[in-house]
Amino acid sequence: MNTYFSNIPAISYEGPESTNPLAFRWYDKDRVVLGKRMEDHLRFAVCYWHNFVWGGNDPFGGSTFERPWFQGGTPLEMAERKADAAFDFFSKLGVPYYCFHDRDVAPEGATPRESHANFRHMVDKLAAHQQRTGVKLLWGTANLFSHRRFMSGAASNPDPEIFAMGAAQVRAALDATLELGGENYVLWGGREGYETLLNTDLSREMDQLGRFLTLVVEHKHRIGFKGLILIEPKPREPSKHQYDFDTATVYGFLKRYGLENEVKVNIEANHATLSGHSFEHEIATAQALGIFGSIDMNRGDPQLGWDTDQFPNNVPETALAMYHILKGGGFTSGGLNFDAKVRRQSIDAEDLFIAHIGGMDVSARALLIAEQMLSNDPLQAAVDKRYAGWNGELGRGILDGSLSLADLSDRVLADNVDVQPVSGKQEWYENLLNRFC
Amino acid sequence: MNTYFSNIPAISYEGPESTNPLAFRWYDKDRVVLGKRMEDHLRFAVCYWHNFVWGGNDPFGGSTFERPWFQGGTPLEMAERKADAAFDFFSKLGVPYYCFHDRDVAPEGATPRESHANFRHMVDKLAAHQQRTGVKLLWGTANLFSHRRFMSGAASNPDPEIFAMGAAQVRAALDATLELGGENYVLWGGREGYETLLNTDLSREMDQLGRFLTLVVEHKHRIGFKGLILIEPKPREPSKHQYDFDTATVYGFLKRYGLENEVKVNIEANHATLSGHSFEHEIATAQALGIFGSIDMNRGDPQLGWDTDQFPNNVPETALAMYHILKGGGFTSGGLNFDAKVRRQSIDAEDLFIAHIGGMDVSARALLIAEQMLSNDPLQAAVDKRYAGWNGELGRGILDGSLSLADLSDRVLADNVDVQPVSGKQEWYENLLNRFC
Amino acid sequence: MNTYFSNIPAISYEGPESTNPLAFRWYDKDRVVLGKRMEDHLRFAVCYWHNFVWGGNDPFGGSTFERPWFQGGTPLEMAERKADAAFDFFSKLGVPYYCFHDRDVAPEGATPRESHANFRHMVDKLAAHQQRTGVKLLWGTANLFSHRRFMSGAASNPDPEIFAMGAAQVRAALDATLELGGENYVLWGGREGYETLLNTDLSREMDQLGRFLTLVVEHKHRIGFKGLILIEPKPREPSKHQYDFDTATVYGFLKRYGLENEVKVNIEANHATLSGHSFEHEIATAQALGIFGSIDMNRGDPQLGWDTDQFPNNVPETALAMYHILKGGGFTSGGLNFDAKVRRQSIDAEDLFIAHIGGMDVSARALLIAEQMLSNDPLQAAVDKRYAGWNGELGRGILDGSLSLADLSDRVLADNVDVQPVSGKQEWYENLLNRFC
Amino acid sequence: MNTYFSNIPAISYEGPESTNPLAFRWYDKDRVVLGKRMEDHLRFAVCYWHNFVWGGNDPFGGSTFERPWFQGGTPLEMAERKADAAFDFFSKLGVPYYCFHDRDVAPEGATPRESHANFRHMVDKLAAHQQRTGVKLLWGTANLFSHRRFMSGAASNPDPEIFAMGAAQVRAALDATLELGGENYVLWGGREGYETLLNTDLSREMDQLGRFLTLVVEHKHRIGFKGLILIEPKPREPSKHQYDFDTATVYGFLKRYGLENEVKVNIEANHATLSGHSFEHEIATAQALGIFGSIDMNRGDPQLGWDTDQFPNNVPETALAMYHILKGGGFTSGGLNFDAKVRRQSIDAEDLFIAHIGGMDVSARALLIAEQMLSNDPLQAAVDKRYAGWNGELGRGILDGSLSLADLSDRVLADNVDVQPVSGKQEWYENLLNRFC
Repeated sequence: MNTYFSNIPAISYEGPESTNPLAFRWYDKDRVVLGKRMEDHLRFAVCYWHNFVWGGNDPFGGSTFERPWFQGGTPLEMAERKADAAFDFFSKLGVPYYCFHDRDVAPEGATPRESHANFRHMVDKLAAHQQRTGVKLLWGTANLFSHRRFMSGAASNPDPEIFAMGAAQVRAALDATLELGGENYVLWGGREGYETLLNTDLSREMDQLGRFLTLVVEHKHRIGFKGLILIEPKPREPSKHQYDFDTATVYGFLKRYGLENEVKVNIEANHATLSGHSFEHEIATAQALGIFGSIDMNRGDPQLGWDTDQFPNNVPETALAMYHILKGGGFTSGGLNFDAKVRRQSIDAEDLFIAHIGGMDVSARALLIAEQMLSNDPLQAAVDKRYAGWNGELGRGILDGSLSLADLSDRVLADNVDVQPVSGKQEWYENLLNRFC
Repeated sequence: MNTYFSNIPAISYEGPESTNPLAFRWYDKDRVVLGKRMEDHLRFAVCYWHNFVWGGNDPFGGSTFERPWFQGGTPLEMAERKADAAFDFFSKLGVPYYCFHDRDVAPEGATPRESHANFRHMVDKLAAHQQRTGVKLLWGTANLFSHRRFMSGAASNPDPEIFAMGAAQVRAALDATLELGGENYVLWGGREGYETLLNTDLSREMDQLGRFLTLVVEHKHRIGFKGLILIEPKPREPSKHQYDFDTATVYGFLKRYGLENEVKVNIEANHATLSGHSFEHEIATAQALGIFGSIDMNRGDPQLGWDTDQFPNNVPETALAMYHILKGGGFTSGGLNFDAKVRRQSIDAEDLFIAHIGGMDVSARALLIAEQMLSNDPLQAAVDKRYAGWNGELGRGILDGSLSLADLSDRVLADNVDVQPVSGKQEWYENLLNRFC
Repeated sequence: MNTYFSNIPAISYEGPESTNPLAFRWYDKDRVVLGKRMEDHLRFAVCYWHNFVWGGNDPFGGSTFERPWFQGGTPLEMAERKADAAFDFFSKLGVPYYCFHDRDVAPEGATPRESHANFRHMVDKLAAHQQRTGVKLLWGTANLFSHRRFMSGAASNPDPEIFAMGAAQVRAALDATLELGGENYVLWGGREGYETLLNTDLSREMDQLGRFLTLVVEHKHRIGFKGLILIEPKPREPSKHQYDFDTATVYGFLKRYGLENEVKVNIEANHATLSGHSFEHEIATAQALGIFGSIDMNRGDPQLGWDTDQFPNNVPETALAMYHILKGGGFTSGGLNFDAKVRRQSIDAEDLFIAHIGGMDVSARALLIAEQMLSNDPLQAAVDKRYAGWNGELGRGILDGSLSLADLSDRVLADNVDVQPVSGKQEWYENLLNRFC
Repeated sequence: MNTYFSNIPAISYEGPESTNPLAFRWYDKDRVVLGKRMEDHLRFAVCYWHNFVWGGNDPFGGSTFERPWFQGGTPLEMAERKADAAFDFFSKLGVPYYCFHDRDVAPEGATPRESHANFRHMVDKLAAHQQRTGVKLLWGTANLFSHRRFMSGAASNPDPEIFAMGAAQVRAALDATLELGGENYVLWGGREGYETLLNTDLSREMDQLGRFLTLVVEHKHRIGFKGLILIEPKPREPSKHQYDFDTATVYGFLKRYGLENEVKVNIEANHATLSGHSFEHEIATAQALGIFGSIDMNRGDPQLGWDTDQFPNNVPETALAMYHILKGGGFTSGGLNFDAKVRRQSIDAEDLFIAHIGGMDVSARALLIAEQMLSNDPLQAAVDKRYAGWNGELGRGILDGSLSLADLSDRVLADNVDVQPVSGKQEWYENLLNRFC
């Protein structure tokens, strides 16, 4: 197939000493790590939107990329050429998975039926590409935020007709995800929030959103989709406030609507930092709350207050995230999606490869570091020792409810001893971490 | 009584034209607003710690205040003089309530028993002062964050002995709150969080914290305390991460441990903004989730990334918060505490009065503005109109569960109509708000 | 003329009691304040780009506005219809000034000459509109950031050919500004910065930028333009780092290239807060450094980390900015531009009016408050008293250089007195401010 | 000497495989890197204040450290014991330098003369310790921010008497720095700023600050001090706004008062990020402006909005800073100071060693990485190629002033060619960097 990437060779592993920018230095997919192939651990996915749909626009500038599928044909023809290029890219890069939004693979039509037909047309094309290349679908999703009809939200829209328009898209996207063998389905509610509280009925909108999610879960069961339903938290942008602010907020939301056993989270590094958390915090929190699902491994810029969706490039930071993921058992149906985009100045076709290679190599190094950390895991051993007192009589008595507040108070006053604190030794832990990084 | 404030007269209402810095221009406690006296609406409280305990220290400088009760006597004598001054202040300012931490009213002793005895001694003094002056206790709390034993948390400490030390303090403080007629009890977990995930067992610490809160609730019922138990959210500081990050996080936490009907939140303006929310967002969220309790009406500085605890001075912003509070029914047992401190350069005795007068006047103006906004409430009318579609057949069918995702999709494809969005009119709402401010 | 705004009446002053959303409640252009008409104080300008060019797009969504001049004709025909609508808007709103970017009034052509011809064509149209309506040009500028050729900067581009392309645009825009009677010329270097230091020669780029600015100043003198050349500082966005970070940075830059007497700043409220400063800080700093020129009166959102360009709506904050502007002597050739945009959900034609009316009324109220503050100016009197010691012998001796470090040290050790600090009385000042707001 | 650290052995280099927490794994002081010993490149300094003076207090909690020199003796006796411990620490750690504040080494007395005498007493002790141990002074400074007299600034104080008090301290500290062979003198103006513009005369305070700095420079020359005078920029904290906001601001300030050839900057990583810049940005900016002097190698926490002063622990980030330092020629009289503090939970004596060892090892690894990067420096080669056009005729003509704005415009219109942009290849650069890290 002759595509935009025809001049790029398939990317292969050449080892750490390679200086070839179009080769992997660390990602060696068949290398066995902790009993599994790297590919099976990392479950890399490439996203459709940033790579094949976005033109390089930002709020202050127009397109910088000149992809051949951006013009010269009917919308459906361009969508087909885009899909050809995308699967050529996935194949040459050697990732097992991709992810898509409905409107990114198929053009919006003039009417709901035409949009639906366009989507169905392209789903067949995607199926054929998957069949041909072996590339699989990590997750599908529906874009309920780009079209002007969703400017005030989809599920949380003041108009139930727009809620229904969103529902129709999600139904089609979920059906297509099942059909394409997708392993998860994601909801990111970029417009499910508000711009100003002044015109917003917060309580009502939350209920609408809860209802929407319930409908999705019911439909999933009805059609027999076995994958995970995932919510992707983000605190804001494009909305001033988004209801799925962070993992802890999503957890409360799920509990409120009785969905905590049905829905998990897809955590993005950049969204984590925008919400005031570290990436590993969001991972560890989701694991503690039992809702860890999948990740978007794309970082922000520490000096910028918006979503920059950059490829990971800091190995120690990525290693810490990977350590937490592996400690929690790694991915089940989830995976590691790059919801990342090349900078708008990176206009060459090869830049798309270089960027993904960098991100995959950083993730692979992170995996290897996490493997070392987990072999006899001195961090965990130190943490266990730190909390050892909770395995004693007092600790057990507190946690099992046999001691009341008054009991504990009586005990303290009876003993009349001032308990001495123990060093937290943060720098010791940090140095230990650097032994592995 | 001869105190630090002897030269300051009792503060009285003189009206908007007054230029007397030691008079109220707007707070006219007996003025009736929406059927209640201003005093009964606003339920002002002065906090003990910032006004009578803090020396003006900051991380880069020592004490700037030279309060007479800071030296010259035994710790208990100084505590008594401090209480004398505090109640003189409350009385002259004319606030109905105060709030305290256990360690702020009574000195830490050499042993738990001595600390307890000191506290009990001072509780009797406080009771006498309340009796004498008519000043009431809005809420009590225990300081589980200043002493070095709590450097790694109280409830979330790796050592159960320190959990017990914290429990003993809370038991005494809750008992005292009941005894002093306190109307609420607050828990602020400044050290219930972590400095680094590396040495932290997140899941275990959350369970400890859940257990602690359950013990407090059980004790409350055991002793017959009828007031609210309130958690005060804060995202960070002093901890890098605090488990009670914001209202939505606290809600999820309460749901997880089955406490959502037992515990509500005390929302601070400064904590709201530090967590990435507006003050009114946190109020509206708590109301929507059914856990609104009380507020700390102290703001941050928009350019500073830490808790500055400043007195409110922006009337329109404060009015918006007040509008939301009143729309939600106002305070029940909660109130409006100034967890605010004068700047460390404001070293005069009168500065404490001037600052509170300013904050009370701003709040009173805000109340009067909210009263105007609520009379025929054009904002609410516009919001109701905006969501009117949800009262129709489609809206009701969605919310009552009679329509499935497939039903909605079928309907959209059958109708085949592209629904047009309606202007959100944010600027119209903002201008409307300014008609009242 | 039949335009998009044909159904909107000319906006008039109706006074504070008016509930007409399409009337001024405070902006009464002929009202005399401190000896000048409101219109002459405020010198309001409407910007072309946000109102007539932007489609409501954001990084996550497409156009929401459906302006008739967005489609249906050749690019030049659309530009002409856009200009018709724009001047209808300016006239009906009743602002004395507008501002434009070259590429916003005229379409980019296929070649530099075609672009230039398009611009020249539209400059003639603008001249005719100005003549017809009496609306004047506050400032012109060139857009050196939207086109992909400028993705790596214009003056700071690694390619001197692109520097030249930018120079050609600025030459044409400056010539046009002169021709249209523009009172200032602004440079905002949104891409004059970097995305990553890794590919950037910082020192070289600063010199390029210094050279560019020198060329502009030389050209200004050559053509006899008498207005101010203004730099608009912004810390970042779209660039990760912008060289014109804030007013103090621009000052150092001007000093470095010997341009501090030639160039002043156009300060935007939103850019100020993005750089970690208050709006009034940037105004006061520019005044202290002698480079205050003009303002963009559009605010950000305190919870958002990007440029939201919202209309001012907080009266006390705006009053403080106005107080500083008036104290510094007010505007000379500068003015008050609304570089503000309606929210993308505000899709009605009237929303453009409502938003500007709100911003103008807030500014007018701010002016009236500043007038009150300045009549016998108790704030300034208090400040003067605070620094009174500097008028004494010691203060004068320090400032005039007659006392050395050793002299001062000797004096301190000779006197051997511990000087006592004086209260900063911040809360007193804040309460005083609220007497006027 | 029997000190707090008696049980700690001298720290030695054991190589990367060592698991001894009290050994260096990378810092091998005599290893030659790019022609110089590691020790001579890195010029490590330990600061006095965080390690030996700070008690572990934070705004919400008291002392956690229990250093023997905190109590049990007269203030001067405690200062002597503190100095004994400090030099024992410096020696065992094996750093060549230390840094101090005047008030940290000697107690404030009851009068200026007593304070001065205390300081002089301790300077003699320090001299003896230096003589005995070979540890040298990297820089001295005076603490003009902790005492309440400086609550409103020293140089920028509204009272010239307090300016004089500050001058006296700086004179003594600068004299002592000369006497102790100090290689630089630092001014950090933590209170040279404002809390509120309302009570501040910005213009006057800047002039006071300019005068103060001039006095210091004059005194330096008078006494024959050959070291650098350094300003340490910080945007805020403890002040709301600090005049020495960042490097670019300091540059403008120096230019304004004619001091740009006399004063350079001491750049702190944590201050850089608080001001909205990366550490390497501040280094590169100072180098471009010709005012790079020295660094404080202590980082912040990306989620926290205040100065956390943590030891560096991210190797790639530190390597990038080191790369820029070396490219600029490395340190002359400056050095690498750890203005870092252990976390307040790190209460053991050994924690002070562990923290510094970690920071030194990270810096040493960073140096080794920078060495690799600089050998044939492929980054610089790529950058040079990117700007190669500026060496051509057009580029030279622009920079040497021979081409005017009109010339450039004429040329563009004559050529009539749309110049095509070239990929910025940020991801390629980032991957290249990761080849070295």
